[in-house]
Amino acid sequence: MSTPSRSTPMDLAAAAAMRGVRGANPLVGAVLTAPDGAVLAVGHHRGRGTAHAEVDAIARWEAARAADPGLAALDTAAFDPADLTLHVTLEPCDHTGTTGPCSEAVLRAGFGALRYAVADPTGDDGGGAARLSRHGVRVEGPTGEAAAVALTARWRAVRAAGRPWVTAHLAQSLDGNAAAADGTSRWITGEASRHHAHEVRARVDAIVVGTGTVLADDPRLTARAADGAAAARQPVPVVQGRRRIPADAALHAAHPVVLQTGERDPHDVLAAIAAHPGPWPHGRRAEHVLVEGGPHVLGAWFSAGLVDEVMAYTAPLLLGAGLPAVAGLDVGTLADGIRLVPDPAEGGPVKALGEDVWTHLMPAP
Amino acid sequence: MSTPSRSTPMDLAAAAAMRGVRGANPLVGAVLTAPDGAVLAVGHHRGRGTAHAEVDAIARWEAARAADPGLAALDTAAFDPADLTLHVTLEPCDHTGTTGPCSEAVLRAGFGALRYAVADPTGDDGGGAARLSRHGVRVEGPTGEAAAVALTARWRAVRAAGRPWVTAHLAQSLDGNAAAADGTSRWITGEASRHHAHEVRARVDAIVVGTGTVLADDPRLTARAADGAAAARQPVPVVQGRRRIPADAALHAAHPVVLQTGERDPHDVLAAIAAHPGPWPHGRRAEHVLVEGGPHVLGAWFSAGLVDEVMAYTAPLLLGAGLPAVAGLDVGTLADGIRLVPDPAEGGPVKALGEDVWTHLMPAP
Repeated sequence: MSTPSRSTPMDLAAAAAMRGVRGANPLVGAVLTAPDGAVLAVGHHRGRGTAHAEVDAIARWEAARAADPGLAALDTAAFDPADLTLHVTLEPCDHTGTTGPCSEAVLRAGFGALRYAVADPTGDDGGGAARLSRHGVRVEGPTGEAAAVALTARWRAVRAAGRPWVTAHLAQSLDGNAAAADGTSRWITGEASRHHAHEVRARVDAIVVGTGTVLADDPRLTARAADGAAAARQPVPVVQGRRRIPADAALHAAHPVVLQTGERDPHDVLAAIAAHPGPWPHGRRAEHVLVEGGPHVLGAWFSAGLVDEVMAYTAPLLLGAGLPAVAGLDVGTLADGIRLVPDPAEGGPVKALGEDVWTHLMPAP
Repeated sequence: MSTPSRSTPMDLAAAAAMRGVRGANPLVGAVLTAPDGAVLAVGHHRGRGTAHAEVDAIARWEAARAADPGLAALDTAAFDPADLTLHVTLEPCDHTGTTGPCSEAVLRAGFGALRYAVADPTGDDGGGAARLSRHGVRVEGPTGEAAAVALTARWRAVRAAGRPWVTAHLAQSLDGNAAAADGTSRWITGEASRHHAHEVRARVDAIVVGTGTVLADDPRLTARAADGAAAARQPVPVVQGRRRIPADAALHAAHPVVLQTGERDPHDVLAAIAAHPGPWPHGRRAEHVLVEGGPHVLGAWFSAGLVDEVMAYTAPLLLGAGLPAVAGLDVGTLADGIRLVPDPAEGGPVKALGEDVWTHLMPAP
């Protein structure tokens, strides 16, 4: 008989991280263990503005002790935090952003040891391991476990390129059309899909659409809850293309800032976004861009290799010779197709949203 | 506080039926209850050649008693089958097909009462309730519970029209293409999708393809297991269209019978199938037809309203301006699109198959 494989704390941390969302922030998971290896708490990051994984794990550990009088009444020596080890898929940050630095949270918790899989690649967030080490924490890392490395591979590449994370949004019929032959497209997808898409809008800094979409659909491009209430943070509309959009376009009334760029090359659009002072809804620059269409805009971003994740909302409907959701790809033969792979984050790569299907994909490695 | 809703035995039978597969045979579920309403066994039909729901429920009840000595040792009066009620979503058949008549199985089991929701609409299978009644079983039905009626609504309409059940098979990229612009299509979908599609082929009587598919792909149209072994029952290839197919086409070598019809209207293709003596793999006529393509063949069957279920295998791939999986639909505006709805049968309308997504849909009611 073969030895049964046993998952390590870092495996568990990587699996927890996958429950989070991709975007401006990396997927991160954290696991707290006792000296005998027992898992005391599991935490993960849920995206911008929410607790980092380390802080989430600490909060869960504290909540578990508070909720269980038996646990709290045991020999306090068993709970000396100096005996515990925190395992994190990414080096703790040493940076005060929306949340405080994780390095300080770990010091405050008093853990004796830290193990991390991947070094924090960011200039301004790096250094958490060094600070912990200086304060007497036994630090081991980067340990390089494959699952933890894979979690943030694309995010680190995007970060190294100095550009925002790019999510492509496709709303289409089963036969891949974003509109019928006459251009009608409201609504191809159902309410549950639109609600999900609005939750995504609330997390991003900018929504890119083409002038054609603005002229055809006059969208507001706001993030709204199911009851119509506006989200606290609204993305900045970025209109890509040379055609003039009318002064009374709905998006002007809905947003204090609208960025129109005459550029059509997505790299140039990103440069225009980087050069724009904002205000951006989540911070001092745009770190997450959602590309919603139309077809040629999506095609250009795919062709440029700038799409980091795909969310496709597919409705149970056939439209025949309509307007394809993605157009202008330079693909002549099967081997040249743009290959994607299922993204296991956010609870799995496929789920039913009402009558629609949501598929979550990422570029093939 | 509202009274919590309590599911009835017929609700349970209908839910069990949904685990089955659609096709030549209807979805049927059966539940056996004690006098106090306790559920003793739940059965369902798993498609052609497998036990009917009643027989499945009886077998499970017998297996439960055999497996549990405590149950068997109880007062035998508690197990007098005359005190038990069998609830079936569809009237038991009185017909000897691949399996014996369910009316006889119920009589042999000795159940005192039968409740069924929907009358068996078929001439040769009907009469089960009458036979049971003649033999002293207390019969109640058709009771018409909505969930049970919905299970077989399309199947009964198809049966009343005297035609086979029609399954449409779409294998496509995320952007709805069955092939790249140059016609290359092997393989768009992955191994798990192809394996699933071969399991479906093994259940059908005929696979309809167009002459274009034969000329372009030279398919064998056989049903094979993952290891390449041929299934015991092979579908008859039906080639629709006027172009000549070569005598050395692979499907000729793979099948004893190949039906080529010059017809292009799906109604006429069905007439040609009905007129053909076979031999058919599952019985004396074709009761389940799988339409695999190409695009115009699928479009014609959809436009004719002859598609009873859709199985779409969607690969994580973008092909741009390729060959659409479905073509020739006369849809000009969104409101005229061919609306489908998720099919809850076979374990739910959407699942991951390897890296692909399988979507199971049926015509909107």
